[in-house]
Amino acid sequence: MELTGPIMLSDHRYGKAENRIVRIYRDGVRHEIRDVNVSTVLRGEFADAYVAGDQSKVLPTDTQKQTAYAFAKKPGLQPVEDYALALAAHFVNEIDPVRRARIELEEYAWQRVSVGEREHDHTWVRQGPEVRTATVTVAGKETDQRAWVIGGVDGLVILKSTGSEFADFLVDDFTVLEPTHDRMLATSLTAQWRFAETTGVDWDEVYAGIRARMIEVFATHHSKALQQTLFEMGKAVLRAYPILAEVRLAAPNKHHFAYDLGRFGIENHGEVFHADDRPYGLIHATVAREDAPDAGPAWEP
Amino acid sequence: MELTGPIMLSDHRYGKAENRIVRIYRDGVRHEIRDVNVSTVLRGEFADAYVAGDQSKVLPTDTQKQTAYAFAKKPGLQPVEDYALALAAHFVNEIDPVRRARIELEEYAWQRVSVGEREHDHTWVRQGPEVRTATVTVAGKETDQRAWVIGGVDGLVILKSTGSEFADFLVDDFTVLEPTHDRMLATSLTAQWRFAETTGVDWDEVYAGIRARMIEVFATHHSKALQQTLFEMGKAVLRAYPILAEVRLAAPNKHHFAYDLGRFGIENHGEVFHADDRPYGLIHATVAREDAPDAGPAWEP
Amino acid sequence: MELTGPIMLSDHRYGKAENRIVRIYRDGVRHEIRDVNVSTVLRGEFADAYVAGDQSKVLPTDTQKQTAYAFAKKPGLQPVEDYALALAAHFVNEIDPVRRARIELEEYAWQRVSVGEREHDHTWVRQGPEVRTATVTVAGKETDQRAWVIGGVDGLVILKSTGSEFADFLVDDFTVLEPTHDRMLATSLTAQWRFAETTGVDWDEVYAGIRARMIEVFATHHSKALQQTLFEMGKAVLRAYPILAEVRLAAPNKHHFAYDLGRFGIENHGEVFHADDRPYGLIHATVAREDAPDAGPAWEP
Amino acid sequence: MELTGPIMLSDHRYGKAENRIVRIYRDGVRHEIRDVNVSTVLRGEFADAYVAGDQSKVLPTDTQKQTAYAFAKKPGLQPVEDYALALAAHFVNEIDPVRRARIELEEYAWQRVSVGEREHDHTWVRQGPEVRTATVTVAGKETDQRAWVIGGVDGLVILKSTGSEFADFLVDDFTVLEPTHDRMLATSLTAQWRFAETTGVDWDEVYAGIRARMIEVFATHHSKALQQTLFEMGKAVLRAYPILAEVRLAAPNKHHFAYDLGRFGIENHGEVFHADDRPYGLIHATVAREDAPDAGPAWEP
Repeated sequence: MELTGPIMLSDHRYGKAENRIVRIYRDGVRHEIRDVNVSTVLRGEFADAYVAGDQSKVLPTDTQKQTAYAFAKKPGLQPVEDYALALAAHFVNEIDPVRRARIELEEYAWQRVSVGEREHDHTWVRQGPEVRTATVTVAGKETDQRAWVIGGVDGLVILKSTGSEFADFLVDDFTVLEPTHDRMLATSLTAQWRFAETTGVDWDEVYAGIRARMIEVFATHHSKALQQTLFEMGKAVLRAYPILAEVRLAAPNKHHFAYDLGRFGIENHGEVFHADDRPYGLIHATVAREDAPDAGPAWEP
Repeated sequence: MELTGPIMLSDHRYGKAENRIVRIYRDGVRHEIRDVNVSTVLRGEFADAYVAGDQSKVLPTDTQKQTAYAFAKKPGLQPVEDYALALAAHFVNEIDPVRRARIELEEYAWQRVSVGEREHDHTWVRQGPEVRTATVTVAGKETDQRAWVIGGVDGLVILKSTGSEFADFLVDDFTVLEPTHDRMLATSLTAQWRFAETTGVDWDEVYAGIRARMIEVFATHHSKALQQTLFEMGKAVLRAYPILAEVRLAAPNKHHFAYDLGRFGIENHGEVFHADDRPYGLIHATVAREDAPDAGPAWEP
Repeated sequence: MELTGPIMLSDHRYGKAENRIVRIYRDGVRHEIRDVNVSTVLRGEFADAYVAGDQSKVLPTDTQKQTAYAFAKKPGLQPVEDYALALAAHFVNEIDPVRRARIELEEYAWQRVSVGEREHDHTWVRQGPEVRTATVTVAGKETDQRAWVIGGVDGLVILKSTGSEFADFLVDDFTVLEPTHDRMLATSLTAQWRFAETTGVDWDEVYAGIRARMIEVFATHHSKALQQTLFEMGKAVLRAYPILAEVRLAAPNKHHFAYDLGRFGIENHGEVFHADDRPYGLIHATVAREDAPDAGPAWEP
Repeated sequence: MELTGPIMLSDHRYGKAENRIVRIYRDGVRHEIRDVNVSTVLRGEFADAYVAGDQSKVLPTDTQKQTAYAFAKKPGLQPVEDYALALAAHFVNEIDPVRRARIELEEYAWQRVSVGEREHDHTWVRQGPEVRTATVTVAGKETDQRAWVIGGVDGLVILKSTGSEFADFLVDDFTVLEPTHDRMLATSLTAQWRFAETTGVDWDEVYAGIRARMIEVFATHHSKALQQTLFEMGKAVLRAYPILAEVRLAAPNKHHFAYDLGRFGIENHGEVFHADDRPYGLIHATVAREDAPDAGPAWEP
């Protein structure tokens, strides 16, 4: 097939990625910290920059950076979702060619240290590897304006040493896997949940609650497959938070293979494992409310 | 807003990610190598695994791995696009519950070494950092079956020390950037091109040609912005290859800041730069033929 | 200078790196987990393998791997230091050509999850980014045998938002830094402590105690420089644990620059920072007891 | 054992790590590029900063950074070894408390692009993954001053698909490995070579020559073990360059396991491999001239 039609600019967007902003609240002796990695993405009337090299409608990515740091002072980063909503609305409302702004954000957790049983006022250690994520989209001018908030967690590494099986699966000519009724199950969970509201939400409380709920289901649900566990986790989260429209989960099956010690006369009843790097299973699931409002551009990158 | 509708499984998919397969062709004294990282993704009638823990329609990800390695022998990995087409078609054609299969693949380049001006028969050094990518989707059974191929390159790091400017941009209260008419321009390019055909293509030749064309435009086009450079690169590729429906480009603007040596009485006329890590500008563009055939699920993850 | 002397093999060693072993203790309903990355390094009479291609004295690295997994069952990984001592002694005692064995080990921390206030029996989430390290060396046969244990922590990211200054430093023609009496101080600490004993130590308790002591000093000591903080941390650890011979600390000064918001009419009194990636200060200190026993080969890689 | 001796500062050093400097030579239309990652390390009379918080002898790491960038203009980075020698000498000669300076440097390679058979004047693509390294130490004041240069390469990934075996090795109770007389051999080589001279060397030519020699030996030498290959590589380098005192090689044995396709009735005669990530063998060798001059502090970090 030889295509002969005219060549044109189709979808386009631009922004400043990975602004590493740390915000200290030092209103009294006891400080608070919020530590984020913020990316801005703008869509709008920027075609001339691509097609003709005309920058007259282009807000420099450097300016987007300055704005991201300025907004960290006020309204500030407490909580991060309100910061992202304000920053996105600023770009759409104040910069004429911007039609849609998206703020993508990772928040790194810090744990206040204790000194002799007492919490210290201004020292923390990093907690991880998991990070909290937030993705906010604001689209449209004035009365047409709408906003979407997606919360999430990335890199939540969780493992159970029993209570998981995988059996009775489809078998073809390339199937050599043995069924098992007791295996280790481990993943590094990425989850994102879309809110049906963008105001009046206690973002920090909801984040903590969802995280706890997902962990609880992973731990207590007897798993017939990682697929099933993911679905149960999503269901539990939606049940607990009617403000959520949907949950998307992506979970690598981090394989732990029971090591063959029988060759050396050593029994290994689910005690010694090799944690393999690659390849890994990768399972995706979206769990949604049937009456979820339209996602609009919430999931568009 | 409180949602009360029933909770259901929506989109779902699963597969085996990052199978690290190396294929040696040793038909004679002179060997050939293809080195890939392959991921399989299946969609179809797998809801029961999520909702009820019923694996009877689930082809284990381990089986997908075995199949990926087996297909590396035959039809083999030369070229990778035909391998991916065959592997995807196998899953759709042979495994009843599979409705759609997607093969995502990175290929690592190896350069045959020379020993005293002569090419060696069976030794290579890795070339990088760039990798070639291919993403193949096969959907539908029998006469309904369709296929899509997306080629690409990832991590093509390219830099020009002059021939780039950025000026006459929009200015607001947060704009402090100075316009410049001579700057360094550098990026780590990710590009993907969708083919209008999936048969009869000399995949290796097209890859080399597109890569060369993009580099040529980056080098010779006087850039008024990275946006403009990307559009020109996409346009040149589509012009050269009428078999392509569209090109998607993502390019971080890897900032190189002229270092302020004036404080030490040292002139710096675009000679000494600090290569900054973060933040970075991030520019996206899609360039397409107006008569491009439907993308279908080609871009769905 | 032209060297004409004979060419010879000098220092040599070999081993199996990064065995990813997970050990589950499942003696009752409540399981325990130890998750490690283990590397073995052997020194001895292996010159012929290099010089003549003669493997007759070479214990394959695959065998070292098998042994590392086997020892994870018994004596097991609780605690990791005793495991490493046993594994190293095995290689020196059982494999004739081995003169010295070194076991390097990282341990990943897992936190038992809670379900409704109660600790769960067999589910954990990864804690990090910090890892516990252990390096054990066993050298010599029979009565000549000696052992050394080095404990440590890597990637302990810690930050204080005040209580740190840097002023009154040396100034030369290239010095433009302004002195400051209130800055943020952050590092990703690597610390290693050498024990004067290898038996009768409660390794887990000492690890927890040292970690707490270092954090406490970082938090409470008013810092005139990261150098001073490191020395105080080392001193406190040695004072608390007379069983330690020395402490080695390496600390990147992870710079957080107060962001210039004055340009936008916004005050920034130590509230908004840019967390910079590179470059970073890098400070090393060794703090030791004057009566520390000989380190022998403990620090040799 | 309880230690009771006084606690003291032992070894200490500090510097600025990972200055990312890019130097463009634009004397005419045809530009040249040198792209480096430079770290400075100073040793000297800095104990008071640790012990007493007294910075009066401390040259700020920020100043070291400024100096590193200033020296990139003049004497410049062509070649990098002379830059490092000049920078190190500057710190020792001009900053009174400095007794020893070490410059560690990685250089990233860029390949000039071609446009229609002609080399372009000012555009390059990154070559990798390998990087060139240099480590320069200058110690002592005035007539006591001495200098050492270590060149090197890091991440040179090289693979041969035949011409390698591993057999006739030591066997113990944990040995299950089968001997093989035809296997794939692959590594990611780190090599460092110490020069007996620091002046009058054509650094760029020697680097290219050593790299070529090592690759040639890897390719053409029939390997009975990676150990043997490393020794032969070191020997060849020393023979070719009498200016070198010693070569240190570190080589992970990047295992490629022949994939078991026999289960599916498919023959696999060294054609389909799984490239495993971890664990990997890790082999070290030092090859030296017997009349090599003293290494002094050249290898001290």
